[in-house]
Amino acid sequence: MPAQAARTRSRKESSAPASPWEAGRKRGAGHALKRDAVILAAARAFRQRGYHNTSLDDLAASLKVTKPTLYLYVPNKEAILFECFKAGIAPIEATLTECEKATGPARERLFAFIRGYAAAIVGDFGWCMLRAEDQHLGTAMGRKIKLLKAGIDKRMRALIEAGVADGSIRECDTRMTAFALAGALNWMGHWYREDATLNPQEIADRFIDVFNRGLRGK
Amino acid sequence: MPAQAARTRSRKESSAPASPWEAGRKRGAGHALKRDAVILAAARAFRQRGYHNTSLDDLAASLKVTKPTLYLYVPNKEAILFECFKAGIAPIEATLTECEKATGPARERLFAFIRGYAAAIVGDFGWCMLRAEDQHLGTAMGRKIKLLKAGIDKRMRALIEAGVADGSIRECDTRMTAFALAGALNWMGHWYREDATLNPQEIADRFIDVFNRGLRGK
Repeated sequence: MPAQAARTRSRKESSAPASPWEAGRKRGAGHALKRDAVILAAARAFRQRGYHNTSLDDLAASLKVTKPTLYLYVPNKEAILFECFKAGIAPIEATLTECEKATGPARERLFAFIRGYAAAIVGDFGWCMLRAEDQHLGTAMGRKIKLLKAGIDKRMRALIEAGVADGSIRECDTRMTAFALAGALNWMGHWYREDATLNPQEIADRFIDVFNRGLRGK
Repeated sequence: MPAQAARTRSRKESSAPASPWEAGRKRGAGHALKRDAVILAAARAFRQRGYHNTSLDDLAASLKVTKPTLYLYVPNKEAILFECFKAGIAPIEATLTECEKATGPARERLFAFIRGYAAAIVGDFGWCMLRAEDQHLGTAMGRKIKLLKAGIDKRMRALIEAGVADGSIRECDTRMTAFALAGALNWMGHWYREDATLNPQEIADRFIDVFNRGLRGK
């Protein structure tokens, strides 16, 4: 397609999601870039329409490719969901590692993690990270997801325990505290909208205020 | 079927869910009882296998009836999920009404509501109450569920506001506090198992401790 036609097409379809297959755009882009585009388009579709209501045909259409082309990058829908899940959990693991390595009272490091978690959860892969486990995946895939999630839970609990040990967090049921925190944060996936009054950092700060000081008045 | 055969059959199948259609059992039971049995069996199936993975054929088989028999009680699967949702939300609304009418500081009434919510959420209809909205129901049904859930959220927030007004709850972002509380509680639907170390009341008490006193140590 001549450059002029490509530009015209690109303008006309500016509201459609970008596709690395589009003529004239990122022509030299490699396999990894195209695979990433499949994963991202899938994450958005799963979030908007749900996993069960998204077919590989829908996904191929949104990327303006054929279904056989998709199979060059991913073996099946379940594998795509798993990739989306991994893309969702990666920034959370990165924040955790950062907070574990940081110095200072563990309560402050826990709160830094809460901010990182809130930011990650509203991202493109947030829905997949939260809901992947509920989609009745095959046993092997389901087990992998459970393990990765349990790892986050364990490390979060260790951060709370470190706070109890260094005195920055009072004695509490660390397991239930981790569940309460994770619940408050994960629930954002149900109510948060991008046009909300508060951004993820402001929401995290409100949550931190509640969890830090408690609700008790006089 | 003679009474002796019915007893033998009943013993043999004692691990299967009770069905009001079973010969010799509750022979005179009426339409409402059988309809309730459909709703309950569906709630259990949705929870175990997920909504999308449960067919009306599965449901009919679990009740030992034919699919046409099911249609005497419910028009379709979506309508069943809505009934399950309503059965899940009813005890929560009842607890709310009780806590709204009670006397005493609003903080105590909020905590009583948390205990009632935790008990309701682990019940047979808890899963449906939590997940119904995610199942991509028709617009009308989805809107009804959203409205009922928003009603709970609004009344929960009003209870927190009453606490701020009577001084039993300190000044806070009441909307975010309601979301944090609802998130902590609703997340139980993901991790709670009946063989857990803590029962729902003990879990609620741990959550109340965290939300009441906060985590701040020295």
